[in-house]
Amino acid sequence: MSNGKQIPLSQDELEKITAEYPTPFHLYDEKAIRENARAFYRAFSWAPDFKNYFAVKACPNPTLLKILQEEGMGADCSSLTELIMAERTGFGGEEIMFSSNNTPESEFVEAARLGAVINLDDISHIETLEKSAGIPELISFRYNPGEARFSNAIIGSPQEAKYGVTREQIVGAFRSVREKGAKRFALHTMIVSNELDENCFADTAQLLFALAVRLKEEAGIRIEAINLGGGIGIPYLPEEKAVDFERLSKKIAALYDEILVPASLDPTRVLFECGRMVTGPYGYLVSRVRHVASKYKEYVGVDASMADLMRPGMYGAYHHITVPSKEGQPHDRIYDVTGSLCENVDKFAIDRLLPEIDPGDLLVIHDAGAHGHAMGYNYNGKLRSAELLLREDGTVQLIRRAETVDDYFSTVRFPGTPVKI
Amino acid sequence: MSNGKQIPLSQDELEKITAEYPTPFHLYDEKAIRENARAFYRAFSWAPDFKNYFAVKACPNPTLLKILQEEGMGADCSSLTELIMAERTGFGGEEIMFSSNNTPESEFVEAARLGAVINLDDISHIETLEKSAGIPELISFRYNPGEARFSNAIIGSPQEAKYGVTREQIVGAFRSVREKGAKRFALHTMIVSNELDENCFADTAQLLFALAVRLKEEAGIRIEAINLGGGIGIPYLPEEKAVDFERLSKKIAALYDEILVPASLDPTRVLFECGRMVTGPYGYLVSRVRHVASKYKEYVGVDASMADLMRPGMYGAYHHITVPSKEGQPHDRIYDVTGSLCENVDKFAIDRLLPEIDPGDLLVIHDAGAHGHAMGYNYNGKLRSAELLLREDGTVQLIRRAETVDDYFSTVRFPGTPVKI
Repeated sequence: MSNGKQIPLSQDELEKITAEYPTPFHLYDEKAIRENARAFYRAFSWAPDFKNYFAVKACPNPTLLKILQEEGMGADCSSLTELIMAERTGFGGEEIMFSSNNTPESEFVEAARLGAVINLDDISHIETLEKSAGIPELISFRYNPGEARFSNAIIGSPQEAKYGVTREQIVGAFRSVREKGAKRFALHTMIVSNELDENCFADTAQLLFALAVRLKEEAGIRIEAINLGGGIGIPYLPEEKAVDFERLSKKIAALYDEILVPASLDPTRVLFECGRMVTGPYGYLVSRVRHVASKYKEYVGVDASMADLMRPGMYGAYHHITVPSKEGQPHDRIYDVTGSLCENVDKFAIDRLLPEIDPGDLLVIHDAGAHGHAMGYNYNGKLRSAELLLREDGTVQLIRRAETVDDYFSTVRFPGTPVKI
Repeated sequence: MSNGKQIPLSQDELEKITAEYPTPFHLYDEKAIRENARAFYRAFSWAPDFKNYFAVKACPNPTLLKILQEEGMGADCSSLTELIMAERTGFGGEEIMFSSNNTPESEFVEAARLGAVINLDDISHIETLEKSAGIPELISFRYNPGEARFSNAIIGSPQEAKYGVTREQIVGAFRSVREKGAKRFALHTMIVSNELDENCFADTAQLLFALAVRLKEEAGIRIEAINLGGGIGIPYLPEEKAVDFERLSKKIAALYDEILVPASLDPTRVLFECGRMVTGPYGYLVSRVRHVASKYKEYVGVDASMADLMRPGMYGAYHHITVPSKEGQPHDRIYDVTGSLCENVDKFAIDRLLPEIDPGDLLVIHDAGAHGHAMGYNYNGKLRSAELLLREDGTVQLIRRAETVDDYFSTVRFPGTPVKI
C-alpha cells in the first residue's frame, strides 16, 4: 500500500529510461518545477517587482537554471563558478545576486563585471570590494541580528554564525558605502534553513522591515529591496505539510502594510533566495537493488550511494523511498537501505518499512532535487551520477552526463608521467 | 609559543612554494611517510610475510601509492576506480586486496582480472562472484562478530553495521566456497576506526585468531592470512599520543604464540589495511588568510574550505593549526577559522587560541593527509585543490593539479548545446 508520496512515472516508464541511461541517476520533473514556481510567484503578485533568486548551490545545473529564469527567477550565486554558470546560462545584471562570505577579490571583480547585485557579508569586505572592483551604485548587506533573534536548529544561533553584519555595525556599513559612492541600497538576511513554519519567515520580514525603517530614520538610507533569504523547507516526511505560499504571502503583506507603508517605504521590493523548495521535491534519485542481504539485520543494497545523496548519511535525514513495482504490496518488511561506500553511515534508510525487496527492483528516493547531486563527492572512488530531465512533453533529456573513470583521473599523475594540465 | 605540532617547512620555504602553487594546497611529506612505514614494518618483522594494504580511499594519489608500494605495502581497494588506480600505479596480483560491500559484478570481474585477493562482505556475494568472475583459488571473508564484540564510537556497534558475515554464517561461508573450488582462505574484519588504544587491536587479533582455530577444527579450513583491518588512529590533538607500534606488535605476537602456534597454525600471515596512520599526520592543508572579521565573535577567513577538508565541518573533528610566521608569539586570541562555503559548519576551528592573525598570513592545518582531499566535493561550486609532494631531497612536486572551471563544467550542458560526452 503506497505510503504517501507520488512519483511522476510508472514502473514501465522508469524501466524504459534505464534502458538508455543506467542507474543510478537523478531525474527532475520540469512540469512540477514550473507549476511550483508559478504558484510561488502568484502568491507574491502583490509585492512590487517580486523575485526569487534561486540558490544555485542547491542544484547547479544550467538546464534547470534556464527553466527557472523562464519562470522569472534570478540566480543567487556564492562563488566564481556559480557566477560563470549563471552568465553562460543567460543571466545578467541584477538577475544575479552575489551572496558570498569570506570572499576573494577575484570574485567581486567577476560579480561586478556581470553587474550582479553584490551582497556584502562583512564590513571588512567594503574595503576588499572598493580595492578590487570599486563600490557599485547598488549595494546590499547581509544582516546578522545576533541574540536579537533565535534561529532554527539547522542553521544554529545567529551570534554563533560566521555570517553577516551585526546590529552595531549595520547603520555604519550603509553610511560607509554611501560615502564611497553607492546610491541604491538593499538588505538581506538568512536566518533559518529547511523551515516549514511560515511564522519564521514572517518574523524575518518583521525584523528586516523594521531595520529598513530604522536605516531611513537614522541615516536617511532608502532600502529599495529586502531579501528575506531562503530557508523555506520541504516536507521530507510523508506526514509533513509544505509551506502554504498564500498564507505565507498574506502574513508578509500584512507586515509590509503595517511597517513599510506608514514609513513611506512603499514600493520596496521583496525578494527571496530559496533553493530547496524550488527543485527539492521534484528531483528523484533512481537506483536499482543489487543485493538483499541478511546479517544481524536485513539489508537492501542499491547502486546509488552517499556520493549521490549525502543527506541521509551526513545528517541522518529522512528521504522517502518508493518501490514502483510494489506500491500495491504490503509494506511489512524492515530494511536498512545501503549504498556501497566503506562508511557505515552510507545508508539511505534505517529500519524502513518497505515491501519485500528483490535484487533488480528499482527504488525511487524522493526529495533529492536540492542539495543532492550538488553535494556529491568522489570518496571511495565513486563516480557522480547523471542528471536527467523529464520534460513537459514526457520526453527525457540528459542534462548532465555521469562521471567516467577518465574524469576521476583527470587531475592526477601516474608514476612516470607528468600531471596533465 | 608553538603549541605542540611541528611542520616540515619554514615560513620562508612555504612562501616560496606558494609563489609557484597558489594556496590552498595539500602538501605531503615523503620522508616522514617512509619513516613511519618502515617503523610499522620493523615492529612486525616477526610476523610471517607481514603486509599493510594501504586503504586507497584515505588518500587516492598514485604518486603516494607508489611510495607506499616501495615500502612494501599493498593496495586495499573498495571500488572499480581504486582497482584501476592500483593497476596503473603498478600493483598487481595479491598486492591488491579488494574489500568492498554491496558489490556489483563488474567490480568482481575487474578484481579477478588483476588477481587481487577478493574479500567477500556477504554470503550473497558468493553467488555474485561465482556468476561473474568465478570462484578464485584464494578467497577471504569479512567477519562481523555482532554483539560478541563492542566497537568504538566512530564505527558503531557491529550488529548495526552493514558489513560482513555473521557468527552463524562464517563457517558455512568458507565451506561453500571450498565446495565451489577455493583452495586458499583468508579472514578479515574491521571493527574500530581512528582508535589510539592498542588493546582494541589486540582484542581484534584474539577474535580472529580464535576464529581461525575454530574454522580449522570445525571445518578443516586452514586460514593462511588474517587481516586485522585498519583503524589505527592518529593523535589529532597535540596532547594525544600515537599508537606505539612496538607495544602493539608485542601484544599481537603474544596472542599469535598463545592461540595460533598451539593449533599448528604457524605460519599464518598477519595483515592490516591501515590508511589514516600511514599518510594522515604527514599531510598538511596550507591556506592563506583572506579576511579577519569581527562580528559577534572574531573570525579568520581562509582560502581553503570544507571542500578541501571536511572532517572539522562534518564531524566537528579537531585539526591542529600552525601559523608559521607567528609560532613564537603568544597564542592569546580566540578565533573561529572559517572557509567560504555557505554552510555555517564550514569552520576549521571554533574558539581556537591562536596568535593575532592578519590577512595574508599562511595557516597550516595539520593531519590532513588522510580522508582530507579524498572527501573533497564541489558544493557551492568550489574547486578541489592541488596536492604537492615534499620529496626527500627537499624539492616540491605537483602530484595532483587543482581543479579548473572547465573541470567543474565538464559534465553539464549549457542551453542550446549538447552534453559533451
